[in-house]
Amino acid sequence: MGTYLVNSLATTDALAHEFSDESLLQAMLDFETALARAQARLGVIPTSAADAIQASAHAAHFDAARIGREARESGTLAIPLVRALTAHVRAVDASSARFVHWGATSQDVADSALVLALARARPLLSADHTRLDATLRALSDRHAGTVMLGRTLLQPAPPITFGLKVAGWVAALGRGWARLDRAYEAAMVVQLGGASGTLAAFGDRGPAIVRAVAEELDLTAPSGPWHTDRDRLAAVVSSAGVYTATLGKIARDLALLMQHEVGEAAEPGGGSSTLPHKRNPAACAVAIAAFLGGMLQEHERAVGGWHAEWPTVAAAVQATGAALASLADATASATVYPDRMRANIERTNGVIFAERVVMLTASRLGKEGAQAAVSEALARTRETGQSFKDALSAIPDVAGLLSPEELESIDVPEQYLGAAEALRLKLLAEG
Amino acid sequence: MGTYLVNSLATTDALAHEFSDESLLQAMLDFETALARAQARLGVIPTSAADAIQASAHAAHFDAARIGREARESGTLAIPLVRALTAHVRAVDASSARFVHWGATSQDVADSALVLALARARPLLSADHTRLDATLRALSDRHAGTVMLGRTLLQPAPPITFGLKVAGWVAALGRGWARLDRAYEAAMVVQLGGASGTLAAFGDRGPAIVRAVAEELDLTAPSGPWHTDRDRLAAVVSSAGVYTATLGKIARDLALLMQHEVGEAAEPGGGSSTLPHKRNPAACAVAIAAFLGGMLQEHERAVGGWHAEWPTVAAAVQATGAALASLADATASATVYPDRMRANIERTNGVIFAERVVMLTASRLGKEGAQAAVSEALARTRETGQSFKDALSAIPDVAGLLSPEELESIDVPEQYLGAAEALRLKLLAEG
Amino acid sequence: MGTYLVNSLATTDALAHEFSDESLLQAMLDFETALARAQARLGVIPTSAADAIQASAHAAHFDAARIGREARESGTLAIPLVRALTAHVRAVDASSARFVHWGATSQDVADSALVLALARARPLLSADHTRLDATLRALSDRHAGTVMLGRTLLQPAPPITFGLKVAGWVAALGRGWARLDRAYEAAMVVQLGGASGTLAAFGDRGPAIVRAVAEELDLTAPSGPWHTDRDRLAAVVSSAGVYTATLGKIARDLALLMQHEVGEAAEPGGGSSTLPHKRNPAACAVAIAAFLGGMLQEHERAVGGWHAEWPTVAAAVQATGAALASLADATASATVYPDRMRANIERTNGVIFAERVVMLTASRLGKEGAQAAVSEALARTRETGQSFKDALSAIPDVAGLLSPEELESIDVPEQYLGAAEALRLKLLAEG
Amino acid sequence: MGTYLVNSLATTDALAHEFSDESLLQAMLDFETALARAQARLGVIPTSAADAIQASAHAAHFDAARIGREARESGTLAIPLVRALTAHVRAVDASSARFVHWGATSQDVADSALVLALARARPLLSADHTRLDATLRALSDRHAGTVMLGRTLLQPAPPITFGLKVAGWVAALGRGWARLDRAYEAAMVVQLGGASGTLAAFGDRGPAIVRAVAEELDLTAPSGPWHTDRDRLAAVVSSAGVYTATLGKIARDLALLMQHEVGEAAEPGGGSSTLPHKRNPAACAVAIAAFLGGMLQEHERAVGGWHAEWPTVAAAVQATGAALASLADATASATVYPDRMRANIERTNGVIFAERVVMLTASRLGKEGAQAAVSEALARTRETGQSFKDALSAIPDVAGLLSPEELESIDVPEQYLGAAEALRLKLLAEG
Repeated sequence: MGTYLVNSLATTDALAHEFSDESLLQAMLDFETALARAQARLGVIPTSAADAIQASAHAAHFDAARIGREARESGTLAIPLVRALTAHVRAVDASSARFVHWGATSQDVADSALVLALARARPLLSADHTRLDATLRALSDRHAGTVMLGRTLLQPAPPITFGLKVAGWVAALGRGWARLDRAYEAAMVVQLGGASGTLAAFGDRGPAIVRAVAEELDLTAPSGPWHTDRDRLAAVVSSAGVYTATLGKIARDLALLMQHEVGEAAEPGGGSSTLPHKRNPAACAVAIAAFLGGMLQEHERAVGGWHAEWPTVAAAVQATGAALASLADATASATVYPDRMRANIERTNGVIFAERVVMLTASRLGKEGAQAAVSEALARTRETGQSFKDALSAIPDVAGLLSPEELESIDVPEQYLGAAEALRLKLLAEG
Repeated sequence: MGTYLVNSLATTDALAHEFSDESLLQAMLDFETALARAQARLGVIPTSAADAIQASAHAAHFDAARIGREARESGTLAIPLVRALTAHVRAVDASSARFVHWGATSQDVADSALVLALARARPLLSADHTRLDATLRALSDRHAGTVMLGRTLLQPAPPITFGLKVAGWVAALGRGWARLDRAYEAAMVVQLGGASGTLAAFGDRGPAIVRAVAEELDLTAPSGPWHTDRDRLAAVVSSAGVYTATLGKIARDLALLMQHEVGEAAEPGGGSSTLPHKRNPAACAVAIAAFLGGMLQEHERAVGGWHAEWPTVAAAVQATGAALASLADATASATVYPDRMRANIERTNGVIFAERVVMLTASRLGKEGAQAAVSEALARTRETGQSFKDALSAIPDVAGLLSPEELESIDVPEQYLGAAEALRLKLLAEG
Repeated sequence: MGTYLVNSLATTDALAHEFSDESLLQAMLDFETALARAQARLGVIPTSAADAIQASAHAAHFDAARIGREARESGTLAIPLVRALTAHVRAVDASSARFVHWGATSQDVADSALVLALARARPLLSADHTRLDATLRALSDRHAGTVMLGRTLLQPAPPITFGLKVAGWVAALGRGWARLDRAYEAAMVVQLGGASGTLAAFGDRGPAIVRAVAEELDLTAPSGPWHTDRDRLAAVVSSAGVYTATLGKIARDLALLMQHEVGEAAEPGGGSSTLPHKRNPAACAVAIAAFLGGMLQEHERAVGGWHAEWPTVAAAVQATGAALASLADATASATVYPDRMRANIERTNGVIFAERVVMLTASRLGKEGAQAAVSEALARTRETGQSFKDALSAIPDVAGLLSPEELESIDVPEQYLGAAEALRLKLLAEG
Repeated sequence: MGTYLVNSLATTDALAHEFSDESLLQAMLDFETALARAQARLGVIPTSAADAIQASAHAAHFDAARIGREARESGTLAIPLVRALTAHVRAVDASSARFVHWGATSQDVADSALVLALARARPLLSADHTRLDATLRALSDRHAGTVMLGRTLLQPAPPITFGLKVAGWVAALGRGWARLDRAYEAAMVVQLGGASGTLAAFGDRGPAIVRAVAEELDLTAPSGPWHTDRDRLAAVVSSAGVYTATLGKIARDLALLMQHEVGEAAEPGGGSSTLPHKRNPAACAVAIAAFLGGMLQEHERAVGGWHAEWPTVAAAVQATGAALASLADATASATVYPDRMRANIERTNGVIFAERVVMLTASRLGKEGAQAAVSEALARTRETGQSFKDALSAIPDVAGLLSPEELESIDVPEQYLGAAEALRLKLLAEG
């Protein structure tokens, strides 16, 4: 019954493991153990009962497919799991069976287990973010002076540096990670409220039990039960969505730079099943697919039916991790072609510097006068194929307003980078 | 690595099977077999090669986890699967290995396999729709005369019949199913285009091979390759969404009727892990959860990155099926409480018939005059607790305009049902 | 208070008009007129009352801002509008006032008005679809023989024709339009049910009145009231989404072809506020923006709160229309550069024909032998810059297996188009 | 062309004003004024030019409909607006015209204007949040001791207090507002980058100009241009979505409590166009509709086409504000019916206390023994209609294990509230 392949491009092996049947069963069982241990510590149930429960609480003892099937009858995995765990404990130590799940409700188990699975996935995401961030910072530094076309609306614009482009990625990823990490941290709360959320079954020891269970599970104790307040999970999912959108944007940028006609960067790529010559942007495709898949999952936050959350939250976190891992791989081994970047600038014949000429001459010609003169040069370039610089030289109105040095260097990209390096450093500092 | 539980409320066992690792591998292998068989029929490859390929093409021969892992390197499951199949064929019959996947591209396998999985899921959905439809029609007929409160904005309104309410469900489900079925039918097309979609590797036999492969797989041959046109899948997912929304609406209606304070209907329900007295609307919860989960999946249609489609399409279809199966179960064994329905009407003290009085008296009192008189009766009812009929009798302006018979029967629900029965029959005829 | 600019890229003037304050008020008033006229025809209310109501029912008589404000108190535009209309009629003909909105409920007005606005927007969409379809068909015919690179995953693949590419657009648009048109047709139903949907206030004349109102408004009479069944609107919105996704895909393809480095097609484009040289794919940007905006709107279908539908439905239809109009404009005046298409093929040095060589030689070398030989030629091409054909000629293993004619024409795109023209014609026939 | 009504339930007048044509034009013009003023301060352009630009930069001088129409040709509102502004300045002071929009690009104007509109909407949201928070805190305090049914899955569960329920709302709203406020604060950044984002047209004064423009507009200067990084806006929209989901949840809770059969709370409500007796949860309907409408808008964040953002962002913020204002109104004048709350508890016949009996007796009977005994009492209650307490008394097994005091007070809600008051105070402290 395992359904892994259908999702294989939208997860990593390590993340898939954290949301596998075995891991989810174990997370639910870990909650029951923590509940029993906490109650034993506080003298609510006998220590022997906690021992017996803990000894039974191993995923390997239980039949996931059967629990999944029975869950559809009761509307939650918790009911068949608790039933099965109670039976297992009873078989081992009949007197302890009654203390299984003592005072808790189904949603306490289900919600806490989901949070545990999230907690266990967290270091996986974190490690890949750190790796990607380091790779990109090094790439930005290495290409601080590498000029390339700016491209707006997919059309050539004045030059930028590849270092600046990458620094923009670093800063956006940094903001995205900060949001995700904050949302994640806030969601690491145990759920324990009992039938109505008042902890009534625990008498006056409710809050103490909640604190003790949280300690056992290395989670936080919330101000109150959150069974009806799904905003923390919603914030995880939506901030995962925003973060993954940035991953998707970077992957798309790379895939665009890797077009044969552009050829400015390449990831190692995957082969093709048919085409021997082809190097596909496979890692980018995985990252974009995971991002698209992740996007689909963001919408739950506003809905809040807790029965619907498990696949959503699990998928969002795994999609984020898949995009992250693919992109960390792709960037770590990406090749950058500075010569091609410069060649693509040159292939514009210098027309991207038209703005520069307008700015230099407008004070004397007026903006419209300058634009008219420049338009003439642009037309000449288009018609004759000569360079924009040569075309400018042939227009007395313009040439007369520029110094020989200005005219000579009018299409040198390094001279029209504005604050690129200052911005790059500020973006890296922010990221 | 199996990940079934995370999704267990959003599928059924039978549907989960169709999207399991084994089934998806087999669907891809079935495509390769069909391709080889078709090519052998047309004399493109030797029959012995087709035999060898078919003999190797069994899911049990392959390692799903490994193929999933390698898929992340190449961006598609097809590349490692074809590689593994080729190796398997070579081990059996070296000379046939070269004919594996002959002239096809990765997306041909992946897309066709997804369509095959959808085709295999189709009768499962269809059977449950038929079952639900029959249940609801019987329920509507049985309660053609059962009066209950109309409720708009969750407030009491003039009476309807439960039969009419259910007939509305039948009609909406019927429209939804017709849309889904039409979209499904249109999507049952094989994908085979080769590297660029022109079938160039097949010379002039391309279209004939496509037709033959479609025949082998019992699918349709499309006008042209659809590798870049995902609209058919999008239409399946979005019409599954609209259909599931109607399932979700019915489930929510049932859950509202099942509130303790309303008590007009009940599904058998599931127990509670804590509360011995409680009967939860478990099947409704599953249906609503599946609907919410399904909603999340609807958004992909507009995006179209085929790498992201598998989990989306699979989840949408399974969520639809889970909602459908739960609701078919819940309605098949639902209990209806006509006495409680009538009691809830009576508990309004008859104020829901105020409109009726306005309509009867407006022609003489004017609408505003009638409303003023009725408002007086309503106020009296509110203050004294007497019935609206008694309050009316005490207002000469109104009482004088109604015949004794009209006044006497002013709050008889059966007399203010308008066209309920005619509408019920028309809705059932449409559904 | 007019809010048009915020939305100006996501509508057209003509569509914005159909959803303007004046048009929506008028649509609600047209419903009230139709109701009165129908009731007068059937003798339910005096003809003089219908005349008075019709005479008052002009949008210009009413204050949209005030009605909008009051709507927030009652939760619907219908209540303040009916109140204002009643007051207006009373001022003109006091005895007719009581017959305003006779037997109808607020949602009857609101729902029917939305359907009317949709009906009025329909020919606008239809005209632009027809225009776009005709443009693309002509483009496909004109470029039936224009070869260009196939591109998969943004990498070069064996050649296709531009005519085939456009025919794929035509077919997908045709399917999308057929879905949208069918959903639209099914949604053209009047809503009239009265307080609880039973038409109780009309006694036994309910169904006749519904038919008559539908006739007055040139809409269809439904089997029953649909106040709680929003699936028809949901289907309009979601099929608009799928259709707009195809528009978005075409616009993105065009924008990619228009990249300076690709240069194979261009829309007339818009200028830039800063860059004199720049021609932006402005119409494509509008189409893509409208598509993205439209995507946002697709999600409502599954939710069904009728209070939330107006902005959703209106925005979805307008976004569709905006994308459609922009793309119809952009394609009508697009320039195609066949020379550049061929040059881009040549710039690959012929490596995209590697598959062709494999297919030609595999029968004798085996697929792996053929792939090995081809790999050698590819490596040589990469290292020396010589053409793939020359590299092949230098490899005895390969050259010996190809006839001189085969080798000579190995990189002629026209000879490796497979079934392109046949597929093109079939796609156009389907579209 | 004003389109306000279509959206009237999804905004407030004050918010609609901030996104009206006039306000958006003015925001764009304010950016141009700030740019000119900043450049004059730094000596980049003459002060007289800044004066002339500022004097022309009034929305009333410009034709919104025309600018909207022309925007569709260039793909942005900025191009026609800058053109119109330049023409206006030229007519007043020809020599200043050339300094309009000096060195900026279209997206600089559009993005900064959107941020300005958001900044101006901020205090409107903030005031309503403060009002709602204060109302709910007072309500929670007033009903700290008001017992009511807990309800899970819409079924009766052990008692809670209304004060606790409201405290949960307060805490969730507080978390939601903190997220929204943080995202909002982070988004208050000016956009100014010039053609490619390097500020190249400003030579070495780029960063200084950015800082000065930010000061003029009372916004923050970012580390670098964010024209391609939409994550800050995405975070505003998605956190508005999560916050509005909580508003929607509260509104739905209120509407459920306001059902005639439940009757535990009521908002003042709106009337009905047909039903004189009816009080609809109109404010809740507006809040829920705005929430549903808002949900639709949340999805853009992951997409990032800036051309599509204006309607999305504007709609999300307005929907949030509409839900907030409606709910602040509804709760401020809501009526709570403590007697009805207690009566609904009593109508369960005490079966909701079954869990309490299990907890009290399980230590001696074992959990299953206790559940069996309780089940017997529950069955007796169901069959005979006697109270659960009386049924218990009649079962020697159970009665013998409870003290007379325990038995006597077994169904006193105040005695089974667990930590309700402690949790309430902690939730209020967190919120």
